[in-house]
Parts: sequence; C-alpha cells; structure tokens
Amino acid sequence: MTQGPANHFQDELKACAAQVADFLEQKEFQVRFNPDDLREAVNLYVRSGGKRLRPAILLWSCGAMGGDPNDALPAAAAAELFHTWTLVHDDIIDRDDRRRGVPTVHEKFRQVAASRYTHLSDEECAHYGTSVAVLSGDVQHGWGISILTDLTRKGSVPADVTLHLIDKMDNELLNLLVEGELLDIQYCHEPIGAIKLDDIENMLWKKTGVLYRFCAEAGALIGLGRVEPNHPHVHALSDFSNRCGIAFQLQDDLLGVIGDPQSTGKPVGNDIREGKRTSIVHYAHENGDPDERAQIEHTLGNLSASDEEIKRVIAILKKRGGIEQTAHRAQFHIRAALESLDKLPNTRYRELLRAWAEYLVSRSI
Amino acid sequence: MTQGPANHFQDELKACAAQVADFLEQKEFQVRFNPDDLREAVNLYVRSGGKRLRPAILLWSCGAMGGDPNDALPAAAAAELFHTWTLVHDDIIDRDDRRRGVPTVHEKFRQVAASRYTHLSDEECAHYGTSVAVLSGDVQHGWGISILTDLTRKGSVPADVTLHLIDKMDNELLNLLVEGELLDIQYCHEPIGAIKLDDIENMLWKKTGVLYRFCAEAGALIGLGRVEPNHPHVHALSDFSNRCGIAFQLQDDLLGVIGDPQSTGKPVGNDIREGKRTSIVHYAHENGDPDERAQIEHTLGNLSASDEEIKRVIAILKKRGGIEQTAHRAQFHIRAALESLDKLPNTRYRELLRAWAEYLVSRSI
Repeated sequence: MTQGPANHFQDELKACAAQVADFLEQKEFQVRFNPDDLREAVNLYVRSGGKRLRPAILLWSCGAMGGDPNDALPAAAAAELFHTWTLVHDDIIDRDDRRRGVPTVHEKFRQVAASRYTHLSDEECAHYGTSVAVLSGDVQHGWGISILTDLTRKGSVPADVTLHLIDKMDNELLNLLVEGELLDIQYCHEPIGAIKLDDIENMLWKKTGVLYRFCAEAGALIGLGRVEPNHPHVHALSDFSNRCGIAFQLQDDLLGVIGDPQSTGKPVGNDIREGKRTSIVHYAHENGDPDERAQIEHTLGNLSASDEEIKRVIAILKKRGGIEQTAHRAQFHIRAALESLDKLPNTRYRELLRAWAEYLVSRSI
Repeated sequence: MTQGPANHFQDELKACAAQVADFLEQKEFQVRFNPDDLREAVNLYVRSGGKRLRPAILLWSCGAMGGDPNDALPAAAAAELFHTWTLVHDDIIDRDDRRRGVPTVHEKFRQVAASRYTHLSDEECAHYGTSVAVLSGDVQHGWGISILTDLTRKGSVPADVTLHLIDKMDNELLNLLVEGELLDIQYCHEPIGAIKLDDIENMLWKKTGVLYRFCAEAGALIGLGRVEPNHPHVHALSDFSNRCGIAFQLQDDLLGVIGDPQSTGKPVGNDIREGKRTSIVHYAHENGDPDERAQIEHTLGNLSASDEEIKRVIAILKKRGGIEQTAHRAQFHIRAALESLDKLPNTRYRELLRAWAEYLVSRSI
C-alpha cells in the first residue's frame, strides 16, 4: 500500500505528539510536583493526549526556516503546557465536567475528595476540586516557562531569542488570550444583536489564533537563530498561523453544532445552552425572521433548554445560512493562509504545514 | 527630632514601596490589560499597597552584595507580583471576602456583575467574580515573568542570571509554594493529632519562607552579577531570609489569634474557624487535658463556631503555652537569621536587613 500525503501528515503529527509526550514525562520534571494529588492533576490532560496541533506547527515552522526541529522541542512542549493550563482554568470558568472523554481536573478532584474525606459536604468536595484545578493550572503555567529557559541553559538557542520568547508568551500571548476569554464571558451576558461579527472574530482570534501565531513565530525564530520578527519568512509564517487559528476555531464552532458527539466528545447543543456567541449564531440571527430571532434569543444561554428546543435552533442555524457562511469563512481564511505559506521555500516542512492547514478545516474531531 | 534606626528603616521601607508602585504604574504595562474589568482586577491589590516587605529584602540584598539596588528594581516588582497573584488565587481557595480592608478580587467582581448584569442569579454573579479572579491572577503571574526578562533586555543584568531567576521563580519557588498551599488545605481535613510540628513548620516554610528566600537570592545574584548560589554571602543571605520567612509566618499566625482586628484587618478567630493547622494549636493541643483537646477539636474548622467558643479556645491556646511557645520559636528563627546576616560585610544595607528582621517579629500588623 502506498502512503498518500494525508497519511504521511498523520504519521508525522503522531511522531510530534509522541516526542512531546516523552519529553514531558522526564523524571527531572515529574519530581517537582507534590503532593500526589497535584502531580496527578498536573499530568491529567498532558497524558490524555489531544492532537498536539500546536507543538507540530512550532516544530515544522522551525524546519521550514532551515532549523533543526529538535532544537525547538522544549519550546513545543512549553506551548503545549501553555495550552494545557489555559484549558484547566477555562474548564473551571466554563464549568465543564468532561474533556477528551475523561473528567475535567476540578471534577476529578471533587470525586477524589468525596471518596477520601467522607465527612465533607458536596460543596466542600467541589471546592477542593476547584482549588486543586486552580493550583495545577498555575503549576503547568510555571512548568512551561521554566522549560523555555532550557532552550538556552541546556540547548543552543541564543539567550536573546529565549528571553524574547518568554516575554512573548507571558506578555502578548497571555494578555490577548485572557482578554479573549473574558470577552467571551461578557458577550454571553449581552443581547445577541449587540455583538458584531467583527467582535466575534476578534474574540476568537484572541482565544485561539494568538497561540497558533506564537507557535509559528517561536519555531521560526529558533530556526532562524535570531530575533528578527520582520524577516519575510517569519512574517509569512506568522500570517499563515494567525489565519489557521481563526479557521480552527470556526471549525470547532461548526463541530459543536453539526459534529458527531461520539467523535467530538462534546454534546450537541452545549455551545447553544452555554450561550456562546459564534459566527454561526450571528449569521442566522441576522438573516432570520422575527419568530426565528425570538427562538434563538430564547434558547441561547438557557442552560435548561430542552433537546427539542436545541433541535429547532439548529434547524434555524442551518436554514438561515449560519453553518454555510461560517464554513465559507473558514475556507476563506485557509486559502489566505496557504497564499502566505507559498512565500516560503519549498521544503518537506512547508508541505507538512500545508497538510496541517487543510486538516484543520476538514477534521471531524 | 533625631531619627532612630527604627524610623530610618520605616522611611527606607516606604521608599522601596513607592519605587515599586511607580514602576508598576508605567503605561507600557497598563495598556496590556483588557477589557476594563481585567485591568481593574489586576491592579486591585497592587494599588491597595501592603507592606512590600519582599521587594525591600530583594533590593537590600542586592545592595548588601555591593550591587546597585536600582538594577534589581524589575526583579523586586516581579517578586511583588508573584506574591500578589498567589494572594488572588489563595483568596478564591480560602473563600476570603476581604483583604487589606477592601473586598478580595473575586468578591469585588461578584459585586460588579450583580450591579451590571441585573438578570443574573447570585450564583452566576459569584461565578463571574471567581472567573475574573482566576484570570487576573494568571495575568499577574505572566506580568511578573515578563518583567524579569527586562532585567537583561532593558537593563545590564547578564542573561544567564536572568534565565536562572526565571527558572527559580517559576520552577522551584512556584512548585514549593503550591505544595505548601495544597498541604495546608489537606491538613485542615485531617485529625489535629495526625499533623506533627515538623509538618506544620515545613508547610509554613513552603508557603512563606521560599518566596523570602527567592527574594534574597535574586537580589544577591543580581548584586554579584553572576550565577553563584554557593558564594558564601549569597548563602548567608539565603539562610537569613529562609528563617525570616518562617518567623514572619509564625508572627502572622500569632496576630491571627491575639492581634488587634482593627490593625490586622483580620477578624479574631478566622484562622480557628477555617481550621488552620498552626503551631499555636499544635502546642496547646499537645499540652491540653482531654477536655481542652476536645474543645479544640470541636471548634477548629467549625465555620459556624460562636464567638463564645472561639474565646474559650483562645483561652486554652494561651493557658497551654501555644502563644508563648510559638513566639519563642519565632524569636529562635530570628536569632539564627541574624547570625547568618553577621557573615556579610558591614554596610547600611546589612543594617536595613537587620532592622527588617527585627520588625518581622515585633510588628502588630
């Protein structure tokens, strides 16, 4: 059997994932985390996998600039940890019980408290779970930063590149990501019509695109060996990843409505019940008739909406072009991303990045 | 009126506090924090002051090594931010409503949500407050790390010193501090007799002493201009600050029981109702008769304990030597700390550190 480009990409993605997973399992790191509950909490999402799309774009961007991706491995692991701690804290904020088919950190340690401290009330057990989740996210945050210092202290990355990346991660990236997260929360409390499409895309970019951009830029600067963010190839990778990040999030929103819950691990209608302001809802609300608008307004953000109500809203989202226009928008961003990518020299890493971008909007999980 | 050494120390401490406060108010930093709720949350404790004991020991340790304390100012600000974000997250975990006479971050933004989003339930408003507090602590964490990179990027500190300090802060310091915090929570759920005095002091050291040690070491290495943690003067400052940190925490525990609530801003009996395992409780429980032990066990960790019950327990803590022996232990650590300090050359910074150590165990706030 011959291997097509898609299979090749999937194999390379798996290889990246395994490399990052092995790196993070090093005993040198694991002995830092005590007591036992904390160590288990810190590793829960790290070990439950995920697709490791961010480490992949970081390593391949390094390769696409002519660097050795192995030099960038600590940065790839740090980016994955950054993503992980934001998930742990987001899950507290979103009050999600499950992620990737397993209990979220705060839910898991609620259960641990309930079975260990049998005299505690349900509320106390839930509070123990939240406390462990807050602390373990904090520890993962520090773990990632500490790993970045190793780029220079244990590797050959110049100190000015490493210091630039540490500042990028914990200043620009962190602040924009948190801003996106808080805007997302605030938008859910505002009337639907009050939020414009630009606001939604800007919020999505902050929540997702900025981390993808960081990954591409970090890999590119490590590959280049100096801090030169305006280098044309670094710039092209930055624009590429930025747009891919938005497209990724749009696809995520689509899967939240029309995805197979068995594959995505996310119940249909979750986003609607939580009141998420997506472009899907925006388009349908704008194009709907007064009855349809009222139906959307009534159901969106209603945690106790029935399955029947969710079905009716999804039918409106489809009928009024919410799905179609959002998919169209995701494709638009990917096309623009690939145009930027074409500015790079033709290497196998560039072609892996191309396959990666195409995967983002074709994936069903 | 002549100024005695104590007044001199207080003036210098105020000067450090003002320097750090001005540094953090720079517009360059403030524009990073959006939307408005986040910027306000990030600044809440930063602007409400506190004694800034940690920046002071950092700057003076730099001076005591012969360095210019101004070179260490970004590190002093970073240490204060590190302390601040751990307070914001701890307040969520401890469910404290007030700190330094103002609402805690999560309580403040519960109130903001209640007045802005009038359709939200009490539970939803409280959740908004918690979400803002989680995110603003995360942002303060990143702010501090980003400032550390400026030691080299905008200052004259060698890159290897800066990278060493970033790793120290976000690896050793962070992991030990979080370990102390989680042990504190777990101890509250265990029987009183199960926790030994050594366990308590070890937990206190992790919660408080490690950050003081970081501050002294960071100032010392910046003053020295190279990574040499085993340099005899760096080592002496490290031991000095370590012991001061434990003494500080013991004094804090004493003020929680016998302090004037008007000065400390902390209601008498708070620590007892929360079930905190302090050495005060440990000594009294060990020395008490069976009735007294039972009284302590009944009241400790009982959130609805009456003022009368709290009074009875405090009387036992006094009668059975809990107060006296804890104060004795704090003095013991300070004496040992001052012996380490004497290994340093005689400079005005060394004498400021001496006054600082003496202040720690004589303060009433």
